[in-house]
Amino acid sequence: MTLSDDRPEVFRRYPLSEDDLDVIHAQAMRILENIGTEVHSDVMLRMLEEAGQRVDGTRVRWDAGFVMDQLSKAPSQFTLQGRDPRHSVTIGGGSLVHTPTGGAPFVYDAERGRRDGDLESYVELVKMAHASDILPVLQSGTTEAQDLSDLSRHLEMDYAILRWSGRPYILYGATGPRTRDGLALAAIAAGGEDALRRQPAVLGIVNPNSPLVWDSLMVEELMALAEFGQPVAITPFLLAGASAPVTLAGGLSLLIAETLSGVAMAQLVRPGAPCILGTFLNGVDMRSGGPSLGLPESTLATLAGSQLARRYGLPLRGGGGLCSGLDMDVQTATESAMSLWATYLAECDLVVHAAGWIEGGLVASFEKLALDIEVLQIFERMRAGIAVNDSQLAYDVIEELGPGGLFLAHEHTLEHFRTESFMSPMFRSQAYPTWVKLGSPSVASVATSQWQKLLEKYEDPGIDDAMDTELRSFIDRRSAELEA
Amino acid sequence: MTLSDDRPEVFRRYPLSEDDLDVIHAQAMRILENIGTEVHSDVMLRMLEEAGQRVDGTRVRWDAGFVMDQLSKAPSQFTLQGRDPRHSVTIGGGSLVHTPTGGAPFVYDAERGRRDGDLESYVELVKMAHASDILPVLQSGTTEAQDLSDLSRHLEMDYAILRWSGRPYILYGATGPRTRDGLALAAIAAGGEDALRRQPAVLGIVNPNSPLVWDSLMVEELMALAEFGQPVAITPFLLAGASAPVTLAGGLSLLIAETLSGVAMAQLVRPGAPCILGTFLNGVDMRSGGPSLGLPESTLATLAGSQLARRYGLPLRGGGGLCSGLDMDVQTATESAMSLWATYLAECDLVVHAAGWIEGGLVASFEKLALDIEVLQIFERMRAGIAVNDSQLAYDVIEELGPGGLFLAHEHTLEHFRTESFMSPMFRSQAYPTWVKLGSPSVASVATSQWQKLLEKYEDPGIDDAMDTELRSFIDRRSAELEA
Repeated sequence: MTLSDDRPEVFRRYPLSEDDLDVIHAQAMRILENIGTEVHSDVMLRMLEEAGQRVDGTRVRWDAGFVMDQLSKAPSQFTLQGRDPRHSVTIGGGSLVHTPTGGAPFVYDAERGRRDGDLESYVELVKMAHASDILPVLQSGTTEAQDLSDLSRHLEMDYAILRWSGRPYILYGATGPRTRDGLALAAIAAGGEDALRRQPAVLGIVNPNSPLVWDSLMVEELMALAEFGQPVAITPFLLAGASAPVTLAGGLSLLIAETLSGVAMAQLVRPGAPCILGTFLNGVDMRSGGPSLGLPESTLATLAGSQLARRYGLPLRGGGGLCSGLDMDVQTATESAMSLWATYLAECDLVVHAAGWIEGGLVASFEKLALDIEVLQIFERMRAGIAVNDSQLAYDVIEELGPGGLFLAHEHTLEHFRTESFMSPMFRSQAYPTWVKLGSPSVASVATSQWQKLLEKYEDPGIDDAMDTELRSFIDRRSAELEA
Repeated sequence: MTLSDDRPEVFRRYPLSEDDLDVIHAQAMRILENIGTEVHSDVMLRMLEEAGQRVDGTRVRWDAGFVMDQLSKAPSQFTLQGRDPRHSVTIGGGSLVHTPTGGAPFVYDAERGRRDGDLESYVELVKMAHASDILPVLQSGTTEAQDLSDLSRHLEMDYAILRWSGRPYILYGATGPRTRDGLALAAIAAGGEDALRRQPAVLGIVNPNSPLVWDSLMVEELMALAEFGQPVAITPFLLAGASAPVTLAGGLSLLIAETLSGVAMAQLVRPGAPCILGTFLNGVDMRSGGPSLGLPESTLATLAGSQLARRYGLPLRGGGGLCSGLDMDVQTATESAMSLWATYLAECDLVVHAAGWIEGGLVASFEKLALDIEVLQIFERMRAGIAVNDSQLAYDVIEELGPGGLFLAHEHTLEHFRTESFMSPMFRSQAYPTWVKLGSPSVASVATSQWQKLLEKYEDPGIDDAMDTELRSFIDRRSAELEA
């Protein structure tokens, strides 16, 4: 191991020292100034040149002072207002807001098997997320509706959340024009473009093409979001050993260079546009070339990303519940738990893909969604901590029962166990012979019944008829244009 | 929820404030002074009376000043020396020393199925633990050799570790006489009783019968260990809602009352006897009455136990890899990962049951052992942290490859990936079609091949013939006495 281990703490919740943070920052600035980034957008290149940056063809060499000035305009916290204002969510300050998985081309549940994503399954995923209390922000395209035309699919994906939920959500996005379509729908739900510009309702995610390339799709998406004042999570897709150096320190310097150049562009479009620092820095499994998820590189990068986000005063986006596992198995569960611990300890403000992610994100799994919701509940209980007061200390009960006493039937236990004892259909203590007598039901089968219950529990929040008509007519008109 | 949530941190690595610690300490002292504990040992009762404690039949009401004076004699750190001195291990200061599971009446592997523990399986478990680098302390009775007589079994269980390993270990113990037999074997391996008294070689675990009962078996074991200066991990078996109040604060006060009264007794036998504060405070699954493992109560109690152990200057024992799960499934893996995160964040000095535990500890599983070893390696890599230096920052490589570069084939990647990229046979990123083509091998089947490789890798460390003869003749003589 070439790794330093001279610091006192045995487990380093925060892997970087203040000096380390300075060194990584300095390298990020050196990268921006000397190497620069590609920017494939004529409009943005012109804006950057006007702002005094050195532009040479599509290469931009950034002035560190300018980048840091721009950064200072970004807020450290903002509020997203859903179609239903009761679902408003604040992002920032360690807010730990979780979203379901997104972008999966395939979908799985135990009854229908692994298949191409489709609108029916996607709407079910939206409804399940809405029925859960633990996913306050949804994600458009949890699974891809591959039964819809690729040209206009994004409209139906965003609409499904507006129609069947009402919570804030991550836009389908992926290109500038699609983002503008999504913003048009969000504006209808917000009561007009001006209303939307005043109050963020949706989030967008842009991924620079690491290392150091801002392609046109992403710059246009970023510009559209910033123009409307909607938050953008800038998330370089960094794989240590592929799109980044295999050594994490180098990858972190790229993460900062790419993110802060993105923040600078957003602020240039609209000073004060909300930006999020997104960490997705993972190792590579050198046997397959695929990303290693939930493994040490990911955890360390998330924790280091947290330190960096705090330093720059930006909210932090992390990925929770991530795994490379292909099945509901011990690999999937271990990797997922590892990645959720990382996002919890890092106090990520926005935790994307926290429920339903399996197979490296290629599949949105109904059973995994049910499992993740249970695991998130475990974390939420841990967050609540330990209360120390007379009722919790229970001295009188201890005295009354005395040595050898049994607390099981005592009134104090009956009074408190519902809030104090964590109980879950999937995490239970049962005797092996009992379990065998029941036919050894797998935890995966419990997960199946759990998502079915969630779907049954779902209640249509309804939508104002006029608003729905306006949304549908926009979609019809725009689909026709796109399909033409 | 009646839980406090007014503290700023969103996830509380350390759930208790300084004030909380004071209040729990005060209640523990109040319990010891006013309620007291049962102590079922005439010898110990006499010693306590002579030391000025209020003894009323078998009830002892403790003087808080006396208890804290006794506590001050216990060391915060000590070294265990194995039969082979190269295997010496220091416990204390956040040492995170892991042991295999212990006390399982049953054993499981995929080839032979779930069955009663037997000597053959037990010896295999000893050899696998020895063949791993990550379990520096072994545990006698990883599975119970039910094919041996209950009267003399303990001798063979301790002997197997002395013969096939040479690392320090947790004694079989469980009663005073068995502990004395184990100490006699350890003394032979140490080169005599005096040598053993000078240098700890083995550890004992005693569990007060919670709440507040010290039964004769445990007091005699504690006295034997203290007499020989061998460390004793005092681990109240507290189930919130059964042997403790359902509210954690109450359980923590019992944990302290029971542990510190045990420390006081050990110091009375031999001032300076090494003692460990053991946490095993878990919730109860009210559906079955069984313990909830790896769930929020356990994690919070382990983290709080860490704060208390540091306050009292005692090394901390926790349980890692614990689960209620009955199979190699997502429940087992999630619970295990949760409990290992707790012991890592708590910086437990001794992590008992860290490999092989399944089914609430009733079964020692070969496949689970292989899985746990992989997961421990993930944690060890995380402990190593992130190095920040020129070679790791790799500025020159980033500059050379520039925007859009691919690091995969670069010399820097080839030079570093073996130490930087965590790779494991169980945690891998592979494409679904490839996996299906291979027959969809389960992670459990990978675990089977992993423990088989571990067993093949095992090398007999050998033992001095004269020492072995002495050990065997003690066992033969003592077995004959016990069976008579």
